[in-house]
Amino acid sequence: MNFASDNTYGAHPAVLAALSDCNDGAVMGYGADPVTERAEAVIREVLEAPQAVVRFVATGTAANALVCGQYAPRYGRIYCHQDAHIETSECGAPEFFTGGAKLVTVPGGSGKMQPGELASRMWRGAAGGMNGGRNGLISITNATEWGTIYSLQEIAAIADVAHEAGLPLHMDGARFANAVAAAGCSAADMSWRAGVDALCFGGTKNGAMGAEAVVFFDPAHAEDFDYRRKQSGHVFSKQRFLAVQMLALLEGGLWLELAKHANDLAAGLADAILAAGGNLLAPVQSNAVFATIPPEAHARAKAAGAIYYLWPDKSAEGQDPVPIRLVTAWNTPDADVAALIAALKG
Amino acid sequence: MNFASDNTYGAHPAVLAALSDCNDGAVMGYGADPVTERAEAVIREVLEAPQAVVRFVATGTAANALVCGQYAPRYGRIYCHQDAHIETSECGAPEFFTGGAKLVTVPGGSGKMQPGELASRMWRGAAGGMNGGRNGLISITNATEWGTIYSLQEIAAIADVAHEAGLPLHMDGARFANAVAAAGCSAADMSWRAGVDALCFGGTKNGAMGAEAVVFFDPAHAEDFDYRRKQSGHVFSKQRFLAVQMLALLEGGLWLELAKHANDLAAGLADAILAAGGNLLAPVQSNAVFATIPPEAHARAKAAGAIYYLWPDKSAEGQDPVPIRLVTAWNTPDADVAALIAALKG
Amino acid sequence: MNFASDNTYGAHPAVLAALSDCNDGAVMGYGADPVTERAEAVIREVLEAPQAVVRFVATGTAANALVCGQYAPRYGRIYCHQDAHIETSECGAPEFFTGGAKLVTVPGGSGKMQPGELASRMWRGAAGGMNGGRNGLISITNATEWGTIYSLQEIAAIADVAHEAGLPLHMDGARFANAVAAAGCSAADMSWRAGVDALCFGGTKNGAMGAEAVVFFDPAHAEDFDYRRKQSGHVFSKQRFLAVQMLALLEGGLWLELAKHANDLAAGLADAILAAGGNLLAPVQSNAVFATIPPEAHARAKAAGAIYYLWPDKSAEGQDPVPIRLVTAWNTPDADVAALIAALKG
Amino acid sequence: MNFASDNTYGAHPAVLAALSDCNDGAVMGYGADPVTERAEAVIREVLEAPQAVVRFVATGTAANALVCGQYAPRYGRIYCHQDAHIETSECGAPEFFTGGAKLVTVPGGSGKMQPGELASRMWRGAAGGMNGGRNGLISITNATEWGTIYSLQEIAAIADVAHEAGLPLHMDGARFANAVAAAGCSAADMSWRAGVDALCFGGTKNGAMGAEAVVFFDPAHAEDFDYRRKQSGHVFSKQRFLAVQMLALLEGGLWLELAKHANDLAAGLADAILAAGGNLLAPVQSNAVFATIPPEAHARAKAAGAIYYLWPDKSAEGQDPVPIRLVTAWNTPDADVAALIAALKG
Repeated sequence: MNFASDNTYGAHPAVLAALSDCNDGAVMGYGADPVTERAEAVIREVLEAPQAVVRFVATGTAANALVCGQYAPRYGRIYCHQDAHIETSECGAPEFFTGGAKLVTVPGGSGKMQPGELASRMWRGAAGGMNGGRNGLISITNATEWGTIYSLQEIAAIADVAHEAGLPLHMDGARFANAVAAAGCSAADMSWRAGVDALCFGGTKNGAMGAEAVVFFDPAHAEDFDYRRKQSGHVFSKQRFLAVQMLALLEGGLWLELAKHANDLAAGLADAILAAGGNLLAPVQSNAVFATIPPEAHARAKAAGAIYYLWPDKSAEGQDPVPIRLVTAWNTPDADVAALIAALKG
Repeated sequence: MNFASDNTYGAHPAVLAALSDCNDGAVMGYGADPVTERAEAVIREVLEAPQAVVRFVATGTAANALVCGQYAPRYGRIYCHQDAHIETSECGAPEFFTGGAKLVTVPGGSGKMQPGELASRMWRGAAGGMNGGRNGLISITNATEWGTIYSLQEIAAIADVAHEAGLPLHMDGARFANAVAAAGCSAADMSWRAGVDALCFGGTKNGAMGAEAVVFFDPAHAEDFDYRRKQSGHVFSKQRFLAVQMLALLEGGLWLELAKHANDLAAGLADAILAAGGNLLAPVQSNAVFATIPPEAHARAKAAGAIYYLWPDKSAEGQDPVPIRLVTAWNTPDADVAALIAALKG
Repeated sequence: MNFASDNTYGAHPAVLAALSDCNDGAVMGYGADPVTERAEAVIREVLEAPQAVVRFVATGTAANALVCGQYAPRYGRIYCHQDAHIETSECGAPEFFTGGAKLVTVPGGSGKMQPGELASRMWRGAAGGMNGGRNGLISITNATEWGTIYSLQEIAAIADVAHEAGLPLHMDGARFANAVAAAGCSAADMSWRAGVDALCFGGTKNGAMGAEAVVFFDPAHAEDFDYRRKQSGHVFSKQRFLAVQMLALLEGGLWLELAKHANDLAAGLADAILAAGGNLLAPVQSNAVFATIPPEAHARAKAAGAIYYLWPDKSAEGQDPVPIRLVTAWNTPDADVAALIAALKG
Repeated sequence: MNFASDNTYGAHPAVLAALSDCNDGAVMGYGADPVTERAEAVIREVLEAPQAVVRFVATGTAANALVCGQYAPRYGRIYCHQDAHIETSECGAPEFFTGGAKLVTVPGGSGKMQPGELASRMWRGAAGGMNGGRNGLISITNATEWGTIYSLQEIAAIADVAHEAGLPLHMDGARFANAVAAAGCSAADMSWRAGVDALCFGGTKNGAMGAEAVVFFDPAHAEDFDYRRKQSGHVFSKQRFLAVQMLALLEGGLWLELAKHANDLAAGLADAILAAGGNLLAPVQSNAVFATIPPEAHARAKAAGAIYYLWPDKSAEGQDPVPIRLVTAWNTPDADVAALIAALKG
């Protein structure tokens, strides 16, 4: 009964099988192999973006930070939500990969930036001239760190703010699958058609061992990206083993099935929390539930063996009601969810 | 009638004279000269810190950013007020000199951090473990960016928070002279006796052409500092010309006279603003006045030729009342202040 | 018949099986799982270093560059052979991870630095004072980029030079297994007993998909290393999948068997080259052969389908004799070697 | 009798007078003042480059490193002579300002790169693909670190190599005045007309206190340069005091007079060394003399009080003949040269 994160589980059997299937024989290293080529092609197809440049890395932090470094100079300002993963959870990777850029955080309910608030901060940044650095990049996360979803209209509105200022828009898609599955739109709709310039298309939280695709929809934006990837140690010599993980998830639509599974379970948990007298801290739109629950429900859940985090951290221990975060994964067992629901309801 | 900043005026005649006086003959470069040695000694005397390591640079941004780089690793968190110069006005220099540290801002009235608020944010940073980076440095500015003064007790309280966490305390003293003059204490009281580990002792805003001293009270903290200074291009070959500027200000106490002049003029402006129906946005304790004034007073001041900035920026144009910032300098003419007072009062 | 590199082949079946075996269930991420713990323990056992700190990353460039960043400041000088992988083949990763350190190269036959030559360059670096930066790290590769082996005595002599100057010694062990297998010594003999402070223990070239261990023999040397790893995107959320690869290779001694296979095949190729009228450019001591061969032998090899690189690069095309590099891998088929030998001999 | 360096002397009286002359009144800071504007204009005139972007910094290391950072990415390769100041004497500043670029050194007699040797190394760098980083910048020094002069034809030949590869050419002109004075050409001839894209026009070694101009002949090359300068702490608030130093040297041609003085004295020393049985290690073409002299001449010079460095460092102590470096400055007294000549000749 592990609801701590969607990275606590392992890899989908199809991913493991794909690793074995591409294991035979000798191929040239560093990405010059047919598996990598095919995986890149499949991602372009899924995104309906025949010109896009696709590259694979093993971690979400690498993907995001490399994109930050690609777009923002060391004197750049990168605008993101105050709870953005790049701000709170990557140990300063964007700052390191850019050589010193500043993350400018934007508040906003449910993990989402509002275009007006963003524009206002961008204006202030620009008004500071040399003093505050140059506006460099806008970054959003979808699904957000609060498990909510930016709608296509909301993405487009932020893209407009970015593009009017001549800035690119990055989407941290560590849970892109969950967002697409939740929105019921196409991957293209949720990315380049809405104005996204660079997408980090996550695999790890959705059944890969450790694989993410970085996608630049305009190939000109990818100039020199391979040097950045290499210099940061993120080019694998046996690159096919990264690529094939994404291939296994994307061919045949497995990625959306897995994301839908996680989303559905989270919806069920949300209902149970409300039924148990709890409250949701944000709408449950993908695979995460942020809620407060009565201390008794918390005690019953823990007694039943459920593992999850208090929110925002352990300092919430002892609060009444208890703020918690539950995350469901691509393979969270239905039985675990049922058991947690039973415990919550008492 | 220039009240835009305390860097709009030139250098004190004693500074210029000192440049000429040390010009003759050949000496070894890069700081191995007797003038530099003497200037370092005088600063140690003024600070009553015989063990301190003293180094000179030409700009306040260099001084602050070098100290940040000295203490905070690239994965470090540097805590400062949300209006700190290192956060708002140095184009990301601390991030660059550290290689990617994150400035974590702390809100607080009148430009001052409260120890409790600081401690709370430091706790959260530490609680994040690897995710958010490692707590690395606490930085305060005195006089603050709002022209207020941290009292010795307030500094000590922040130093306690820092030291209990094993972190050093940096003081951005671009207007250290104004702070010491305002507090009527010794330079030692306002620095190491209150718990400051590294002081950027400003000269430029107080009558130098461009000179600042970086002081590490514990010589162990200065290890390798000269490499950092050299690698960033801040070691002058004709180093004596930096050092002698500080020498001219510090020998004989000129630095405190000049700072007192600026402080006194600001106090007069504050009184005039209140008399003219304006309001102070922060207590006027050194050489800056943040206030709102009636539009008519603003119009009269502008008509009289007064130069100053709206606050926080030009977007304040047209507000009623008008938020403004006035800064007095070491040599702001009394007549200019009198003229501005007359214009404000109408 | 691929002799281009030892990273052209895939993973050993035991590695793939181990991935599957550890796939079930949910564990805490980022290394806080029992598989990672066990893999770290096994490496400590193999190295007879119960105090060592062991961490896993996916690429050799990451491993090397992280160690460089751990030891050398941004104003540091890192001494290595002029053909060192960190100098020629990592796109400036050491420079990036240190924030600007300088690699000072040392010439030397067969890919090996001589202690005297190293000491002489270190002396010159120190003599330059601030100008040239501070001596920071010594790095050697074993097996070397030329397929040769530093003997235990040679390592110790270099370690002495390093330690007398107060500097640590890093060993790039991308082919550490090949070196240990060739020397017939213990892993401890070839590392800490000979004076190595930090070892990059390679798995990828020896049958892993992509896994390397970074080992600090003195735990004090590992301070903050996890922050560096995280900030560069090299901490895997599903960390067990890295760790288990090394575990599969090390438990039961598979790593030495595989390395011995590669070494033995290379020795056979060396004999064939000599028999075919070629010459060796360096002693063949591990799994790489640098040689010149008659153009006819080259033509026959190519006609037979052998894939390998000219040396040092394609500009050697058309030379007589033809300089080439042949690399054997953990699973290079005996038949391929036999076929190449036949082709070379004509 | 100081021949250690051309930075051991102070500033020309005209420079000091100019500082005083621009001291009165209040002007806007950070370069938005009329003195800076005029100094920029005068440099454009002297260089016959009406479109050029001109910026001032206080040290040569800052100037060079900022240009490196402007042109070379962190994965870049910067080609320079093995004795280039940026390689040997700036503590890794180019590496720091670029965030990790690699300096690739090129050997060559008398401090000068040969175009063929340069092209060959550039080819090898490009051939390495991702492995070695991307070719980014070519840098030459004129006058060179050996006191020699690249002729206009030699500069043009190197510029051709650079431009054919699509790379810019930087000239470290710490002693640009000495080079122009020696060549008897125009400043334009020696810079943009010969293919130089960015010039660091030195003032410090030629009579300034500490002032250098960075010149980008194509304004597009200067994009964002002010951010870089600011973020590294090299924008002075009282910027006029930097600018006016260059103005004092350039208006009226003082810069060439001073350089000619230094050059002439060096020529005299060279003659004396030959007459005293010494040998020149490089042609004496500007204000530095590299030579070997008999031990007796060395002893007499030292006894007479002459200060100079052994070459390349103190390890030359005791050699016979004695390798030395003598540098003359803009104001080296004729009497000092005469005295040294007398001592050398015995």
